[in-house]
Amino acid sequence: MTGQILSPDELEAALRAIGAERYHNLHPFHRALHDGRLTQGQVQAWALNRYYYQCRIPAKDATLLARLPTAELRREWRRRLVDHDGEAPGIGGVARWLKLTDGLGLDRAYVESLEGLLPATKFAVDAYVEFVRDRSILAAIASSLTELFSPTIISERVSGMLRHYDFVNSETLAYFHPRLTQAPRDSDFALSYVREHARTVEQQEAVLGALKFKCGVLWSMLDALDYAYVTPGRIPPGAFWPTCP
Amino acid sequence: MTGQILSPDELEAALRAIGAERYHNLHPFHRALHDGRLTQGQVQAWALNRYYYQCRIPAKDATLLARLPTAELRREWRRRLVDHDGEAPGIGGVARWLKLTDGLGLDRAYVESLEGLLPATKFAVDAYVEFVRDRSILAAIASSLTELFSPTIISERVSGMLRHYDFVNSETLAYFHPRLTQAPRDSDFALSYVREHARTVEQQEAVLGALKFKCGVLWSMLDALDYAYVTPGRIPPGAFWPTCP
Repeated sequence: MTGQILSPDELEAALRAIGAERYHNLHPFHRALHDGRLTQGQVQAWALNRYYYQCRIPAKDATLLARLPTAELRREWRRRLVDHDGEAPGIGGVARWLKLTDGLGLDRAYVESLEGLLPATKFAVDAYVEFVRDRSILAAIASSLTELFSPTIISERVSGMLRHYDFVNSETLAYFHPRLTQAPRDSDFALSYVREHARTVEQQEAVLGALKFKCGVLWSMLDALDYAYVTPGRIPPGAFWPTCP
Repeated sequence: MTGQILSPDELEAALRAIGAERYHNLHPFHRALHDGRLTQGQVQAWALNRYYYQCRIPAKDATLLARLPTAELRREWRRRLVDHDGEAPGIGGVARWLKLTDGLGLDRAYVESLEGLLPATKFAVDAYVEFVRDRSILAAIASSLTELFSPTIISERVSGMLRHYDFVNSETLAYFHPRLTQAPRDSDFALSYVREHARTVEQQEAVLGALKFKCGVLWSMLDALDYAYVTPGRIPPGAFWPTCP
């Protein structure tokens, strides 16, 4: 930190630089997933653990929603709940993620039970919800800015997985398609909020720190998967054991 | 879970069985540490990350202390704060841990800044403090029961490290010596509290779940160290970079 106040453009550039260094598209497990180097069992482990992230996102958004001071901000943030929880059973992002775990051959009740999660997944995701509860509203909004970088990773993920794996298809990957429009809409809002409201050095440091924190959440989830499921003999006691090779 | 109420002896046996399966003395990184297979830089990474656990233990204990209903219980739990924070600067478990990081060649201000921590370390330790804040007092006390198993790991750690590493000595490992008497005293209390107060199936399940949770905290910390610092090229962005080979 230089201790200098940044212009909105400089702040945005600093945020994008954090993404360029720390976003999880750079993680070796992500590359292995997209390059077709994982087994179906390893992709199961990824989808099972990532389910916990997906299913806690509405809790994260509701936690922030409860703290927002105006109807305008709450309406904006409420869209995220609609995207994830849908308008009816079977609709929405969490339901679409379960279509992926179904398609990979995982038992839905087992996935929803959360029993096979890596502890590290739970700690990382819970840390995200708690961050949004405990930090400033500005920092909480800034922590969502990883969505600035998600269209790229989603495109890579879908095309790579469809090309390399016969155990997925465009229906089981249906989660990702709406995210290509939802994520930019959401990150446009969050970025313009942050550009407008982070005016002091302290606020700008909090915003940059929030994005680093969130990159750490996503990165550490892939660290844990890579550690547990790529080298044999590393699955921690009690965690999911792949049901296919 | 069988759904049957266990006798106090059966409950204790079930707790000890969890330790036999899940305590981190079984982790490959622990074995590598004690067998002399780590470099000084890898031991630095372990001590630096473990420092965060040490320095949050008083916060964990104070969080529980604040919830305990009687002077008797609070006096019992207060001893843990005295053990860790001492009666004067430079005394107590946290200060002794800093002697270890000093002895390993780490800059004390850097260690205390927490800047180089693995995100997974932070998430795991914070999850422990939050568990103690949010769960029942019975579960919070039960989560300390990993101390039942710590004298063994401490003995292995000290003798193995002294034998294999010329960069530690009995002075830099001074943290561990008092723990050999403190941990059994503390776990005796916690175990007898749990044996007496966990009387329903739900309470016993909460107690067993608390110990599993805590084993997951310790285990995932070693997963993260093993992943980041044993295979080259895995240190996450922003984390500690060893200062010696």
